[in-house]
Amino acid sequence: MKRTLISELFQMEEKQVLLKGWIHKIKEFGNFAFVVLRDKTGLVQLVVDDVNIINQLKLEMSVEISGQLKKNEKAPGGVEVHVEKMRILGNIYYDLLPFSINQIKVQTTLENELDYRYISLRRPDRRVVFKVQQEVTEAFRRYLIEKGFSEIHTPKIIASGTEGGSEMFTVKYFENRAFLAQSPQFYKQMMVGSGFEAVFEIGHAYRAEPHNTWRHLNEYVSLDVEMGFIEDENDLMDLEEGFINFLYDHLKETCREELKLLNIELGTINKIPRITLQDVQKILEDVFGKSSPSGNIDAEGEVLLSKYIKEKYDSDFVFITKYPVSKRPMYTMPDSKEEGMTRSFDLIYKGLEITSGGLRIHDYEMLKGNIIKFGLKPEDFSFYLDSLKYGMPPHGGFAIGLERITMKLLDLDNTRQSTLLPRDMNRIEP
Amino acid sequence: MKRTLISELFQMEEKQVLLKGWIHKIKEFGNFAFVVLRDKTGLVQLVVDDVNIINQLKLEMSVEISGQLKKNEKAPGGVEVHVEKMRILGNIYYDLLPFSINQIKVQTTLENELDYRYISLRRPDRRVVFKVQQEVTEAFRRYLIEKGFSEIHTPKIIASGTEGGSEMFTVKYFENRAFLAQSPQFYKQMMVGSGFEAVFEIGHAYRAEPHNTWRHLNEYVSLDVEMGFIEDENDLMDLEEGFINFLYDHLKETCREELKLLNIELGTINKIPRITLQDVQKILEDVFGKSSPSGNIDAEGEVLLSKYIKEKYDSDFVFITKYPVSKRPMYTMPDSKEEGMTRSFDLIYKGLEITSGGLRIHDYEMLKGNIIKFGLKPEDFSFYLDSLKYGMPPHGGFAIGLERITMKLLDLDNTRQSTLLPRDMNRIEP
Repeated sequence: MKRTLISELFQMEEKQVLLKGWIHKIKEFGNFAFVVLRDKTGLVQLVVDDVNIINQLKLEMSVEISGQLKKNEKAPGGVEVHVEKMRILGNIYYDLLPFSINQIKVQTTLENELDYRYISLRRPDRRVVFKVQQEVTEAFRRYLIEKGFSEIHTPKIIASGTEGGSEMFTVKYFENRAFLAQSPQFYKQMMVGSGFEAVFEIGHAYRAEPHNTWRHLNEYVSLDVEMGFIEDENDLMDLEEGFINFLYDHLKETCREELKLLNIELGTINKIPRITLQDVQKILEDVFGKSSPSGNIDAEGEVLLSKYIKEKYDSDFVFITKYPVSKRPMYTMPDSKEEGMTRSFDLIYKGLEITSGGLRIHDYEMLKGNIIKFGLKPEDFSFYLDSLKYGMPPHGGFAIGLERITMKLLDLDNTRQSTLLPRDMNRIEP
Repeated sequence: MKRTLISELFQMEEKQVLLKGWIHKIKEFGNFAFVVLRDKTGLVQLVVDDVNIINQLKLEMSVEISGQLKKNEKAPGGVEVHVEKMRILGNIYYDLLPFSINQIKVQTTLENELDYRYISLRRPDRRVVFKVQQEVTEAFRRYLIEKGFSEIHTPKIIASGTEGGSEMFTVKYFENRAFLAQSPQFYKQMMVGSGFEAVFEIGHAYRAEPHNTWRHLNEYVSLDVEMGFIEDENDLMDLEEGFINFLYDHLKETCREELKLLNIELGTINKIPRITLQDVQKILEDVFGKSSPSGNIDAEGEVLLSKYIKEKYDSDFVFITKYPVSKRPMYTMPDSKEEGMTRSFDLIYKGLEITSGGLRIHDYEMLKGNIIKFGLKPEDFSFYLDSLKYGMPPHGGFAIGLERITMKLLDLDNTRQSTLLPRDMNRIEP
């Protein structure tokens, strides 16, 4: 007999069914029991009156059951299955679950949930976070492919860093020392120049930053974009704004149930304001009496700015533009109209930076000069620099942190909640 | 004026157009020149009669040109563009190209092509390999999502290896030593048990194998699948056979032009034979007088077997089943009917192994016993082993090497040809 998924039961006629899943809940009443069975699609109530079966039941064992699907107004969803046979598929070897997962709330710490990811993810409200995350990548891919972008896979083992080697993990690569890539920056630019013109990559990025906060991960998934033959950084912000619109529509369509379960109303995307860093700093000073570090705003500033933007423009997003040269990487295009400024931007979403982007320097001599100005050595970037010798077109791009955008979409408190198996300073297992 | 892509020109009326791309070829004839312009979509002939423009032209510079689109039967594709204005977008800084890319054949070594990837990929016949590769991942994703699989991203920085730590790259992770994952094996199994039931991942895998051959890469993209609540390994082979069918159909539909350019006829997929290793070894011995290593076949055996299967079954694919326990990892399900054998398989495609897969041990006590039998320590696999304590259902999976399947689909000679930027023992740049 073919397996029926639990979600299919609610539209079916009364009949014999075969289900597979985990024992989510057991309520015994003398010689019968109500049992909740869980599979990847949902929960259903089972009625068990065979004492032999009842005696075998343990929470979280995986089973196959066959029985009669019956309508019952009093049962959740209006149906229940009267169990005739049960076969244990996956046995249990524990005395007590590390924490209960069939209650309305989880009574444990985030650390404990992460230590036992294979338990906590069994809760639908934990698992659906990753359905939404999957649809974020799906939307990103669909949106860009429709615009003629190519998806690429670039190496994560690299010989030299985009920023000169600081805050990178080192790898012993046969007899050499190598690094884990902080971003596909050089490679995505190179692929634009290699004739792909417009590329994206969904892949891991590594930061050896010694920060252990709610918003830092040492390994994360980066949604990277790079686009050639553009006029200026507004083309990039237009592209990202278009994506955010597409994403919201896509999630409303594909994650209706998941968003409902998590109690999330996505709202609508209005025109995303684009404000220069200088003006942002002034707003923070004038409205909140908050001073900012030179050439940037801090984490508190991001939160206050988002509060202000939400009230004034009814937008959860805001682009900050024109960062100073000193605060951006050496490959960032300087602003020819404003001395000391660059044609770059960040995107802030609900008080958190989720994107950094900008126009890049595409001229060989100009980049070489800039590398020297930054006190770096051109020979340390030779393959990257050389790739600009052969008619590199004007280009730029940006990157979105997948865990960060997922966290903010779902109003979670910590990026670890939107990471299946996070890596941080203290966590390398499971 | 809006940019027109070159591929769009061939269906258009005669009119003013704006093109962007690279100078692919220049043929001067006194006071006019035929120039071939290249963009990501194709090539078109330009006619330039302005000597000022002709004098500026250099191969591979990137330009914007505007001019009149004209029909001309003698021009390739029946159209040409008479250039009125040209703007240089990306200048060149070289005397000679490292090798010519506008001839019918590339007159250089693979090593040189890889050193100058940003040059060699400008050839359409090099770049379309990665369009096909993108559609392989696209087909994999579409096929599995339709079957209810979830896409996951699991860590590549790990604390211990699936095989006990041999042939892994080590990473300095803050004060600890970590490894780069050889495969998402433990994590994809864990996610099946965490309630996703069926998962896939498209991500990097790392092998510190000291082999520098046409079929080895030290960093590659693995198409990984794991599926719970299955009956036996035939469910997995059915799934993979279904994918191969889907893939061929998908490529014929989405890569018609690319396959034509590369002169590839995909053919049709017949039922893929499933033959036990023992029978395969016997065939090699009887038909080719070829003896095999104990419990496996070697690279030459894979080639001979494929020749035999092609002739006898008209199939480019063959599953080899029932590998001995001693040749498979400790988590492989033993065959209860045949002492010393496992419920595992490989898939050979045109003489090359592209997949390893099998049923896994899902019972905690059984896996613990097997780890000990293998001379390994259960405590070295504690988080993995522990994840089997909570009702892990029967499950199994397989993995396909993306570069390998692309290579064989396109009859390439070396996996490096189907890798944008390969990593091997001697290559870590660009």
